Formats: sequence, C-alpha cells, structure tokens
Amino acid sequence: MVPPDTATLLIHCPDQPGLVHDVTGFLFSHGGNLMDLQQHIDPLENVFFMRVEWSLENFTLDKSEIEPRFALLGKRHQMTWKLSFQSQRARVALFISKESHCLYDLLSRHESGELPVEIPLIISNHDTLRSAAERFGIPFHHFPITKENKAAQERAQLELLKENRVDTIVLARYMQIISEQMIGDYPNDIINIHHSFLPAFVGAKPYHQAYERGVKIIGATSHYVTASLDQGPIIHQDVMRVSHEDSVADLVRLGKDLEKTVLAKAVWWHVMNKVLVYHNKTVVFS
Amino acid sequence: MVPPDTATLLIHCPDQPGLVHDVTGFLFSHGGNLMDLQQHIDPLENVFFMRVEWSLENFTLDKSEIEPRFALLGKRHQMTWKLSFQSQRARVALFISKESHCLYDLLSRHESGELPVEIPLIISNHDTLRSAAERFGIPFHHFPITKENKAAQERAQLELLKENRVDTIVLARYMQIISEQMIGDYPNDIINIHHSFLPAFVGAKPYHQAYERGVKIIGATSHYVTASLDQGPIIHQDVMRVSHEDSVADLVRLGKDLEKTVLAKAVWWHVMNKVLVYHNKTVVFS
Amino acid sequence: MVPPDTATLLIHCPDQPGLVHDVTGFLFSHGGNLMDLQQHIDPLENVFFMRVEWSLENFTLDKSEIEPRFALLGKRHQMTWKLSFQSQRARVALFISKESHCLYDLLSRHESGELPVEIPLIISNHDTLRSAAERFGIPFHHFPITKENKAAQERAQLELLKENRVDTIVLARYMQIISEQMIGDYPNDIINIHHSFLPAFVGAKPYHQAYERGVKIIGATSHYVTASLDQGPIIHQDVMRVSHEDSVADLVRLGKDLEKTVLAKAVWWHVMNKVLVYHNKTVVFS
Amino acid sequence: MVPPDTATLLIHCPDQPGLVHDVTGFLFSHGGNLMDLQQHIDPLENVFFMRVEWSLENFTLDKSEIEPRFALLGKRHQMTWKLSFQSQRARVALFISKESHCLYDLLSRHESGELPVEIPLIISNHDTLRSAAERFGIPFHHFPITKENKAAQERAQLELLKENRVDTIVLARYMQIISEQMIGDYPNDIINIHHSFLPAFVGAKPYHQAYERGVKIIGATSHYVTASLDQGPIIHQDVMRVSHEDSVADLVRLGKDLEKTVLAKAVWWHVMNKVLVYHNKTVVFS
Repeated sequence: MVPPDTATLLIHCPDQPGLVHDVTGFLFSHGGNLMDLQQHIDPLENVFFMRVEWSLENFTLDKSEIEPRFALLGKRHQMTWKLSFQSQRARVALFISKESHCLYDLLSRHESGELPVEIPLIISNHDTLRSAAERFGIPFHHFPITKENKAAQERAQLELLKENRVDTIVLARYMQIISEQMIGDYPNDIINIHHSFLPAFVGAKPYHQAYERGVKIIGATSHYVTASLDQGPIIHQDVMRVSHEDSVADLVRLGKDLEKTVLAKAVWWHVMNKVLVYHNKTVVFS
Repeated sequence: MVPPDTATLLIHCPDQPGLVHDVTGFLFSHGGNLMDLQQHIDPLENVFFMRVEWSLENFTLDKSEIEPRFALLGKRHQMTWKLSFQSQRARVALFISKESHCLYDLLSRHESGELPVEIPLIISNHDTLRSAAERFGIPFHHFPITKENKAAQERAQLELLKENRVDTIVLARYMQIISEQMIGDYPNDIINIHHSFLPAFVGAKPYHQAYERGVKIIGATSHYVTASLDQGPIIHQDVMRVSHEDSVADLVRLGKDLEKTVLAKAVWWHVMNKVLVYHNKTVVFS
Repeated sequence: MVPPDTATLLIHCPDQPGLVHDVTGFLFSHGGNLMDLQQHIDPLENVFFMRVEWSLENFTLDKSEIEPRFALLGKRHQMTWKLSFQSQRARVALFISKESHCLYDLLSRHESGELPVEIPLIISNHDTLRSAAERFGIPFHHFPITKENKAAQERAQLELLKENRVDTIVLARYMQIISEQMIGDYPNDIINIHHSFLPAFVGAKPYHQAYERGVKIIGATSHYVTASLDQGPIIHQDVMRVSHEDSVADLVRLGKDLEKTVLAKAVWWHVMNKVLVYHNKTVVFS
Repeated sequence: MVPPDTATLLIHCPDQPGLVHDVTGFLFSHGGNLMDLQQHIDPLENVFFMRVEWSLENFTLDKSEIEPRFALLGKRHQMTWKLSFQSQRARVALFISKESHCLYDLLSRHESGELPVEIPLIISNHDTLRSAAERFGIPFHHFPITKENKAAQERAQLELLKENRVDTIVLARYMQIISEQMIGDYPNDIINIHHSFLPAFVGAKPYHQAYERGVKIIGATSHYVTASLDQGPIIHQDVMRVSHEDSVADLVRLGKDLEKTVLAKAVWWHVMNKVLVYHNKTVVFS
C-alpha cells in the first residue's frame, strides 16, 4: 500500500503575531491534517521560519490549486515560500572525480530506497569510475576538464542537466570549482562535501593542513555551493577524534567515513525539503 | 533591564485536526506573541504533544486568568496540560551522599546564574559534604539512614521539603533508594543520574559491570525516578569512548564528567519546562 | 614501488620484568627495525599484552625461520602468541541476508584497496543480493536455511569455506545463528555486527527495544561470535543521538550508518592484526 | 597504604634500531618493573618518541642517581628527555578573570583528589572571583591590568610565581595576552583554553564568529601558549552539536561545559607527564 501523498511548505518572512495561526488556519480550513510543524524565530533579524507538512489524504484543494491559493496569504505576510510534494522526487545529478566512497555510498542508499530520489546521470571529469556508475545502471558522462575547455564543457554539462530535468546537483568529491553560471542556475541546489571542519582548512588538501596543525579532531562539512569557495551555507558537519599516531594517509582513510555520512545526511535533508537558507546560514528542520 | 515574563504550556492529548490552530488562536486572540512552538505527533499512539512559549508583554489576560480560560479549550480536546511562568523559579532540593562532583557542578551553575532555580536546601545521608554545601551558603541537612530509621527519616525529609516549598528533587549521586511515598508526592519531579548507559548496567556498581563486559564506550543517564529501579523515563544520556587501558578506577574518574554534564542538562530542561512525560518516555523539546 | 613486508607479533603471557626487553632483544639481534610497539598490563589479572610490528627489509631471519626461533623465547615466558605478515592477506567470507548496506560498504572499501583482504566468496540464506555481489565480481552462494536443513547446510558452508581457504568470517547482517561447530572451527575469527549498544538490547529487534525504552542514543556493536548469543568479546562500538521525533523506522534507517562503519572498523583492526582476545574481552591496539 | 612511587621518562630523539631495547635494558638492569610503555615514530621526520613509567619499589638506583646514569644513554642517542616522579606533584597557578566555570571545575577536582596537584595561588586581573577562590582556601591575588601597568604587573606576577615555586600555569579563561617574558620562563608549561575548535575562530569572541558562520558544531581547544596567539601546540579538543535554534548566548552557555572538561583533561595529561611537544605539535600518550 502506498502511503498517501504529503505536501510541505517552507516559509520565511518578517516576524509578527499570528503567523502560525494563519498558516494552520489555511490548512485546517481545507481539511489538511498536520504531520509535522516546526517554527523558528531569529530574534536578532526578526525573521520567522516555518516548515509544515500535511497529509493530502482528505485535503479538499487539488494539488494544482494549493500554490495560487496560498500565494494570497503569502503575499499578505511578505513570505518567501516553497511548496513541494513528497511524491515528486528530486532529480539529482552526481558529480564525481576519482574517489569512489561517496559515490558508492549514495548509489547504495538510492538502490535500497533509503534515499528517495531519481539519479538520471553521473558526470565526471575522469573516466575512472565509469564501470562503478554503470554497474548501478546510471548513465555516466565523461567531461574531461582543461583550462581551455572548461567554459565549453560546463555549458555542455548544463545542457545535459536540463535535458534530464535535474533540480539538484551533488558534488560527491568532484574536484573542480563550479562556475558562477552553474551556481546561478542552481541557487542553493548544489551540495558539496568539503573534507574539513569548516571554516578550518578551506581550499586544497585539508587533511594535510590538519596534520600540519596537529589537531586532535578532524571533520567534514556539507554546504551549499556559492561563488565564494568553501564559504556557502553549512548544512551538516561531523567530526572524529584522531591522534599523533595518525599519518596524513590515516586521516585521508578515516575521513572518508565522515565525508560519506555527512554528505548523505545533507542530501537527505535537502531532498526531504527540510533545509531553508537565509543570509548564508541554514535552518535545518531535522 | 529585566526581560518581560513569558508563559509556557506543555500539552498532550489525542491527535485530531486543528489543535495547533486552536491553541495559537487562543493565544493570538489575547495578544500573545509566540516565542517558541514545537509540536510532535506519535503516530502509533495517535497522541499530540505541544510546547508553546509566548511573551506576556502585550498579553491581555492576567496571569491568574490564563489557567481558567485555557481550561475550557483543554477540556474540549481532552488535553493534559501544564502552565508555567518563567519568572516563577523551580525550588530544587539536592540529595547527595559522599561524591562532590555533581554537587559542585550544580552549585557553581546556580551561583553564576546559568541554572535559574532556587536551592533552598541540601539533604545528605552522610555529613561528608557539609562544608562544601555551606561554603555556597545553602542549608545542609544530615539524615543518616539505617534500615531501621529509613521510613522515619524519609517522613522527616518530606516535611522539610514541604516547609521549603520544594517542587523538584535532584538526586546528585544520592546512593539511597527513594520510597514510593516520596515518588508519589513528586511524580516526574525527581531527577536521578545513573552512571551507566541505561538500560545497560542497572543497579549497583555499573562501572564494574562495564569493565567486566569489556565495553568500548561508557555512559550516564538522567531519568525521572519511578517505583522501578533505574527504569524511569529517560531525559538525557551521553557517552564517552574508553579502551582496554582503562581500569575500573579510570572509568569511575572519567565517568564523573559525563554524570555531571548529563545531570545538569536534564535539570536545565526540566526547570525550563521543556520535558513532557508520556508512557514512561519523555518528549524533550530541547 | 611496493613497500617492504612487515611482520607482527601479538603476545600475551603472565607479567614479569624484562618481557619488552627480551622481545625487542630478539628482534634487534636479527636486524629488525620496530615500526610500532604497544604493550598493556592488566594489573588485576597480572597479564602482559604486546603487539610489535617490524620491517622485514633488513631482517636477517627468513620468514619461515621466525616462528621456530621465537617459539623458544615464547615457551620460556609461557607466551600465547601469533605471528603474521602484512603481505599475507586475510581471506574473508561475507555472510549476508537481505540488507545491503554493510555488504556494499565492505565491497566498496575492498575495491578501493582501503580494506586489504581477499573476499573469495559471499554466502547468503536469501537470493536477494545475488546481483549486488556479482556486480562486484564476487562469487555468490545461496544457502537457504530451514529448521530441517540447517545442520546439513552449515556442513556444506564449512566445506566451501575450507575449499576457499577462508580464515575470517564476517557476518554482515546475517540473520542466522551460527552453529557451535562453525564457531569452534573459527575461534575469534567470526565477526558480527549487532545493531545495538551491547549489552543493552540483546537478541531480536533491538531498534524496537530501544524505541520502547525511550533511549536518547542508539548504538551498534561489533564483536567476536561465541556460543552465547551477543555475548562475545566486543571489538568496537559507536553511538548516535536520537530523539522522541524518531520512529522505529527512523532508528532502523539512521542505525545503518553506525552498523556499516562499526563493522568495517572492527574488520579492519582484525585483519591488521591489532586485536587480541583474553577472557571474553579484547585488547585493541588501535 | 600509599602505593609505591613511580618514575616516568619522556623521550624523543632521531629514530634508529634498538632504542626501546636500550631503554628497557637500562631499567631492567636496575630492577625496574615497567608499568606503562608507549612509543611512537614519526616516519616523516624520522623521530622516535617514548614514554615509559616504572615502579620504584624494587628499583636499585636511588632517585637522585637516575638522572646522571640515564644521561649517558641519552647522550649516546642524542635524546631530549625529561624525568619525573609521581610523588612530586606539579605546582599549578590558576590565572582567571571573571568567569567561574573553569575555576570551580578545577578546584573541585583538586579538592576531591582527582587532580593530583598543588595549587599554591590564584591570580586574577579582576577581583570578581576572590570569594570563590578563598572559599576553597586558595590564596587569591588581584593584579589589575592596564595598558600602562601591564609590564610591571607581569614582573610582579613572575616574582610571586617563583616565590611559590610554580611550575605550571593554567589560564582558566584568563582574558589577557601573556607576555613573551612569561612564556619564555614557562616554555610548554602554560596551558590555555580557547573557546573554539582551533584553528577555526582564533582571537576574540569565537562564539560570535561561530554564530555568524552558521556552524553546526562548536568546540573548545586546550593548547600550550606560545608567542603566536592561539597557535600553540594543541593538547586536547572536544566539540558539541548545535543548531539554528541556538543564539550566541546559548553557544556561550553550552560551550562552558566543553571548556571546563577540555581544560581539565589537558591539565591532567600534562601533570601526569603524558604530553610531549615537538615542532608545535603534541604527542599525548593518553
């Protein structure tokens, strides 16, 4: 038996009394039964954030009617809002290079149904992991990148993404900087995994930097990609204890477990419509 | 400048559509501005849980009127609910034995203002920590317990608690079993710290048990005291990695850091009215 | 360039002065350069534990001579000891059922070279994951188990294991109880992953048990299999915070990340000859 | 019964075969029974590190003879080494400002005997915590610091430290920069707690910086003080998960638990002679 579909609204707007009452009133008046409601107020910025998910089982509005009807309420409160349906799966493109751990981790979560997304294609700047991708039945596209062809290759990638109606890009240890063009086309929809506890150790070779500094804990950070390298809104982070016994090679090996679990959790929250971006920070309704 | 007072409602009741709308409607209609709203639905039990905190700054109902007015709404939805005010501090009795780490930790949080409670008295079955208590200016009462005098001593303790209008009892490594009488007088208001990751290692000498079993992680658990030893609703738990290098004495020493931080956090959530008990489990709106 | 081979000795014996000096003297006298030396003394049992790894680059004894020569020293100190060479990879059989997360995790670590073992075969009591196994090029053997055929099937499994010269069995969420016969043939060489923080929640459906008890942290435990269910020596454990928001299904989903990383780490330590078992506990020279 | 005294050697030198054998030979030849031996090799720098602790119960050398005798061996291998005795307690000065959490935490560990040190004095640039210090019977010295008097006050502090034969300085949230003079007099003997996960958020107001960046985890770092602010060798770090719900005030409150436990553990390792500094990094034989 397929469970009935649900709808989710992610909202932020200037705070004022009665917002929760108004939104729940809208849903209640059309027979919507709340499954999850979370709200948060940023008292410094005076901003109201809300996530509400409700069952469509007895909802009296047609799915296509919700958006125009809610728009009236949204406009009244100057809301920025996004409506999504659980049945409408995210279409995710994986960008990879030569490292397989995040790739296999995401593909196995996808295959088992744990990660409810479509993965229409995998893009890589190396041919190394073609067989890994194809083994899971996902089309693999090799875009070798050089200084000269980078702009052209990105245009070709963007075309391919659009053909495949991709709405989310996951950089699963893709070792190339994304152009502002692509970032602009996918605002807050490109998720990266950086192999350090940001903001420590931005840029290249973070495990080497961590080793040099002699830290006792290493980390990984998943964030939305913005035009500033490793500076985008942080979605999730996790860490692991290390010691003087651990060489750089050990940190690289150990860190993989962080990278894959942190990235997978960030992707899961994103596709479950639990993440809201505001002022280079995230509200994660986890 | 003292910030304006806030009121908090903790609610649970059978789930049905419109509950959030009704509660927020009640608050909104009297000018209450929401500061925090969290709700949770247990889909197996079909129970609705909610915590809502609002500012009393422009609230048009007098504090004394809120309870009778809300009672009507509560009755309609078969709610179990509890109203509290931030300005009305919990009155906490600390029960201790010979170990000082939880005691000092709570007293220093109290003194710095981090833990917003009154501590009218400390009760101990040993005289060991009298000077520790008195150094912080808290009256110390010594109730030596023997098999013979236990019932009488507990009656005397209860009397003392009532004289001091104590509403919350914190067992800060008190090594005595609490009588059903006292538990009945303070239902879900007696907080204990057990020095293991419950339900592992109930009863006496949990660090010895942990050592014997060869676990790689030790823990501490803070829970409400019920008539079943170490079986009450869990409020908070935390753990720490250990190894074969650690003797029982090491586990005892290391575990103290867990015990004091886990207990302090549980007490904090309790006195901030963030904990709701249902069917031997807690909902912690942290 | 292949790095030169190393040898490892795992030793335990009654403690007495001069043991480290004697062992290092043996190695030094034959030109062995120590790469890692760890020792531990259990003061209660008065037992000495040691792991020493040295380079064979300039070692003057032939690999085949080490065992007979060291035996004299070992006998003198009543040592129980085990010699192994890094170049001699463990031959691991994976036992699985229907869940793929531990399987894919181990196979991808194997493929990338992170886990330096041979995996000559995969055994399952269900046919569900045949294609998953075969996709990675590992022979898959289906042994359906019923009450009636269990003994016969295990005999056939054992034969197959011996044909493939398997020395280590990894139960990667294999949902069958292993016979005492197989345990006897692979003493301290069968590694299981149990999806709870042992000794809490032994036996079936640990996540359901955890949900019922209302714990705030869940765990996973990797241990050697002994005749007592879930009672064998613990190799590794890890935990994760959960809340009242998490349903049993959430615990099952979240716990998979613990299970796969805990199992992988236990297997890694085992095949790197870093684990020593003594009195139902492990010494992990991590 | 007082346990017999132990001696500890911390050693580092260029790596070469036979070092462990030589050191254990020295101890064995004088009847020393090893209680703990740990060694580590930095393969990049080709440096050997070792900590060895042995019982003096049947040791045939007098305590005063160990140093001159071992010096011969040390010189032969170009060792840098330090000998210490467990019976010889570190003499620790606490430097504080206005925050009490680290102070109370260290004083209560000291009083209970958990932290085996002498604390002859407390120094503060504010008078705020005088009664806190005096309540525990420790002399409190107030040194108000201004731009003008800073140099003179530090000279007076140094004199006081020497009068009290202080060998270790613990900056328990002391909000002043230490002069190079004092650092030079106490090389690798001044321990600071910084309220961030270094190298993230150096300098002032790290919790504000963490809030601004929107990190999902906060940390604390204990390190030796060097002339470069917040850049000294890291001894210990720990972290804690936070969320968008947490204001700066919440981070400040929550972080205190990290600060006090991280600092206390770093001090414990230091006074137990478990920390060795090399090239701005630590080897912690924990």
